[in-house]
Amino acid sequence: MAIRLGELATRFGCDLKGDPDIVIDSVASLGNAGAGQLSFLSNSKLRPQLASTNAAAVIVRSEDVDAASTAVLISDDPYASYARMAAVVHPPRALRAGVHASAVVAQSASVADSAEVSANAVIDDDVVIGEHAFIGPGCYVGPGCHIGADCRLVANVTLARAVTLGDRSIIHPGAVIGADGFGNAMTPEGWIKVPQLGGVQIGSDVEIGASTTVDCGALGDTVIEDGVRIDNLCMIAHNVRVGAHTAMAAMTGIAGSAVIGKRCMFAGQSGSVGHISICDDVVVSGQGMISKSITEPGVYASHFPAEPAGDWNRKIARFRRIESLFKRVGRLEKGDK
Amino acid sequence: MAIRLGELATRFGCDLKGDPDIVIDSVASLGNAGAGQLSFLSNSKLRPQLASTNAAAVIVRSEDVDAASTAVLISDDPYASYARMAAVVHPPRALRAGVHASAVVAQSASVADSAEVSANAVIDDDVVIGEHAFIGPGCYVGPGCHIGADCRLVANVTLARAVTLGDRSIIHPGAVIGADGFGNAMTPEGWIKVPQLGGVQIGSDVEIGASTTVDCGALGDTVIEDGVRIDNLCMIAHNVRVGAHTAMAAMTGIAGSAVIGKRCMFAGQSGSVGHISICDDVVVSGQGMISKSITEPGVYASHFPAEPAGDWNRKIARFRRIESLFKRVGRLEKGDK
Amino acid sequence: MAIRLGELATRFGCDLKGDPDIVIDSVASLGNAGAGQLSFLSNSKLRPQLASTNAAAVIVRSEDVDAASTAVLISDDPYASYARMAAVVHPPRALRAGVHASAVVAQSASVADSAEVSANAVIDDDVVIGEHAFIGPGCYVGPGCHIGADCRLVANVTLARAVTLGDRSIIHPGAVIGADGFGNAMTPEGWIKVPQLGGVQIGSDVEIGASTTVDCGALGDTVIEDGVRIDNLCMIAHNVRVGAHTAMAAMTGIAGSAVIGKRCMFAGQSGSVGHISICDDVVVSGQGMISKSITEPGVYASHFPAEPAGDWNRKIARFRRIESLFKRVGRLEKGDK
Repeated sequence: MAIRLGELATRFGCDLKGDPDIVIDSVASLGNAGAGQLSFLSNSKLRPQLASTNAAAVIVRSEDVDAASTAVLISDDPYASYARMAAVVHPPRALRAGVHASAVVAQSASVADSAEVSANAVIDDDVVIGEHAFIGPGCYVGPGCHIGADCRLVANVTLARAVTLGDRSIIHPGAVIGADGFGNAMTPEGWIKVPQLGGVQIGSDVEIGASTTVDCGALGDTVIEDGVRIDNLCMIAHNVRVGAHTAMAAMTGIAGSAVIGKRCMFAGQSGSVGHISICDDVVVSGQGMISKSITEPGVYASHFPAEPAGDWNRKIARFRRIESLFKRVGRLEKGDK
Repeated sequence: MAIRLGELATRFGCDLKGDPDIVIDSVASLGNAGAGQLSFLSNSKLRPQLASTNAAAVIVRSEDVDAASTAVLISDDPYASYARMAAVVHPPRALRAGVHASAVVAQSASVADSAEVSANAVIDDDVVIGEHAFIGPGCYVGPGCHIGADCRLVANVTLARAVTLGDRSIIHPGAVIGADGFGNAMTPEGWIKVPQLGGVQIGSDVEIGASTTVDCGALGDTVIEDGVRIDNLCMIAHNVRVGAHTAMAAMTGIAGSAVIGKRCMFAGQSGSVGHISICDDVVVSGQGMISKSITEPGVYASHFPAEPAGDWNRKIARFRRIESLFKRVGRLEKGDK
Repeated sequence: MAIRLGELATRFGCDLKGDPDIVIDSVASLGNAGAGQLSFLSNSKLRPQLASTNAAAVIVRSEDVDAASTAVLISDDPYASYARMAAVVHPPRALRAGVHASAVVAQSASVADSAEVSANAVIDDDVVIGEHAFIGPGCYVGPGCHIGADCRLVANVTLARAVTLGDRSIIHPGAVIGADGFGNAMTPEGWIKVPQLGGVQIGSDVEIGASTTVDCGALGDTVIEDGVRIDNLCMIAHNVRVGAHTAMAAMTGIAGSAVIGKRCMFAGQSGSVGHISICDDVVVSGQGMISKSITEPGVYASHFPAEPAGDWNRKIARFRRIESLFKRVGRLEKGDK
């Protein structure tokens, strides 16, 4: 959407140095931007590009204004300002309110008039879909789910049952929310299934990635608080609680009944055992594995960076003998050899 | 479903202490239960709650009867008894036998009259669907699949082709069974695809989690034996065999042609290389990686628990010099320094 | 499809020893093959089976001809020859050109007459689908996607938007290509979404596994070059580039903006951090974690093989004291104890 630079400055509270009548019609990186394009500088390594960029305007911190050769919007946080402006310049397509002829909606479901239910979606019993919600192609919204206003289920999303979404939350394709938790009781005849009877409560402004799974609670609900960001292919098991504004990168797995604090960050392929608590503001590094409760904010790690296999194999051969090394040192300390 | 306590006692072989005419209409945890609700005690840490619970009745071991203030059902295994009773009190909704108008069923497919094929499901050539089976919304059942009696494909499940399911098995949303295995032959022109021609045999009473993938065999079938439980986002590669009653927690990956024994348990994010055998009754801890065949039952591990990153980084810096430490100790043992 | 042995020999440039009129109607392993079946020997451990196999013919290297008791096709690379011949003997079912009545195709989309669009598929605005492409049941092809000739989207595949596929590429069920990358800017009010505006460019002869996710670029595209093979449940984050003929086994995760070279191989559950480069011909072993750029071809590793938990727990207890051990050795070297 084309917009005047002056309007962006006003709307997002940035000082403007340059012509307010410049029209912005898209965004681009400093290196690729051209006429009509807005860019930004948040990574100081790219600062030299400020002088050479062909962008129509650039969002910068005040200390970078002089380095720019273009019109500038001044922001304390150029990346956040860029995110907000890019959403205005590149809005999602407008909703086509109504239910597509090929969608199947249960009689007991309630769909807001302003919502869009796309082709081949299925809306089951007692579902409530809020104003301006988007239910994408092929989505299944199971019995008793409540979808807040302005939510987006992009495509082929499954909400199995009893899932509540707040407002403005986004669920990406292939995500499965509210499937049965992994509850099994061993008997002499083998496993028997423990009915999974709880639901999933998801707050507002949450984003859940492609092919991520969030299981329903066994008794009581699994809870994802407001503002949480979960990337693709993550697993949130039954009765987990994820605190507000926590972010999890791809392939993170949280086992059952773990309670995760607010503003935590999990890097890719990390995990946590179940039935523990992690306090607010904990960062877990890639492939890190949380094995017990954490009560102090900070960064936690347990990964080994890869190295050439020959070097690595020698190290693990040594590691296999680490006990003997302790014994040898003990003997040396006693004066034996 | 409301049921008298006396009927539960009779049906599941529990002694009853209390009024058999108490009506149970739902289940709940000890802490949350109220009038009409059945609870259970299996975790001894929760024993103090027996005196204060507002449940209508509680399932307990005989030694805990006196600690309870409510009616009790006495069981050697309260968790298993709870699982069985909860399934009676909270049954899945009754099937709506027949094929939904929006579903697409090939002429060569055979669907039992008592089965339910849901909205926007697609049933392909030569499929056989057994009595009382449930094919959920958006599921695709590919050519030549056979679905046993009382199976449930919850929603948006894909059985690509040549998948056989026994009876009473449950496949959760997003699971993909029978897709091509990862078979590639390197040539001077790059990879060429090795046709994946086998199928997948899944036994009875199996449960497969959301977004889990079980590939078809290259030649011959991939096999999941009776009673196996596989959680979400697991990967079972081509020609793997998983023994009866083995359980795999989320994000477990088993590489091609591995043979896994009976009653094994894999914790989350664990894995196994291919072309090996694991005997019965092996337990693999979280993030554990099985790299060779196992012939002795027991617990196997290879994970490091996370710790504060500063501590961890010092340790891996030391680990990087572990070879030099061995050498230094060797010199000390020889009397050199 | 039945075919004369002589025709296979001619078509694939193999010398034939035996009757060219033998008719091959299927393929099988050496141990299972019978009348009318073609097998192959590529793993020298199976060489003794050459004498006893009941196959109608076997593909072997020239040095194995004398060990065979059947007709033989002679190839420098029996596995590759087998792959090519198996594709002829077991072709995929012929396309049924046209759009199924239950599929939904946008008016602005262009579907080649020779393409097949299956039941309950949804084709959105401005999509172009090439000659002889197959769009399987339940697939969603989002706005602006271009599908090359002879591509196969097997079933329940999601191409969210702006995905370009070259020719002959195969996308397996549940895969999600082109969903938003994980772009978030932290603000005092919590995370805000950074619009993900790029697309995904996928080359020709690429295969992408079940439930794998490839996110769209933030600005600019995510790129998968020709001939790449990606297994199930992998994650390719925004703006990653994967070089031609690289192969990734299941559950591999590549973080944002990483650049992966050509002909690399990632074993299962491995990963790479973002914003790094990996040169051509790098092999990463299972669960390996690449934490910085790699400039030398070779094998890289960082995994620990599982061992009995008692042994393992003793080792990690020692590892926790590795710093103290260095200090103790240092004291010994100084002559202190």
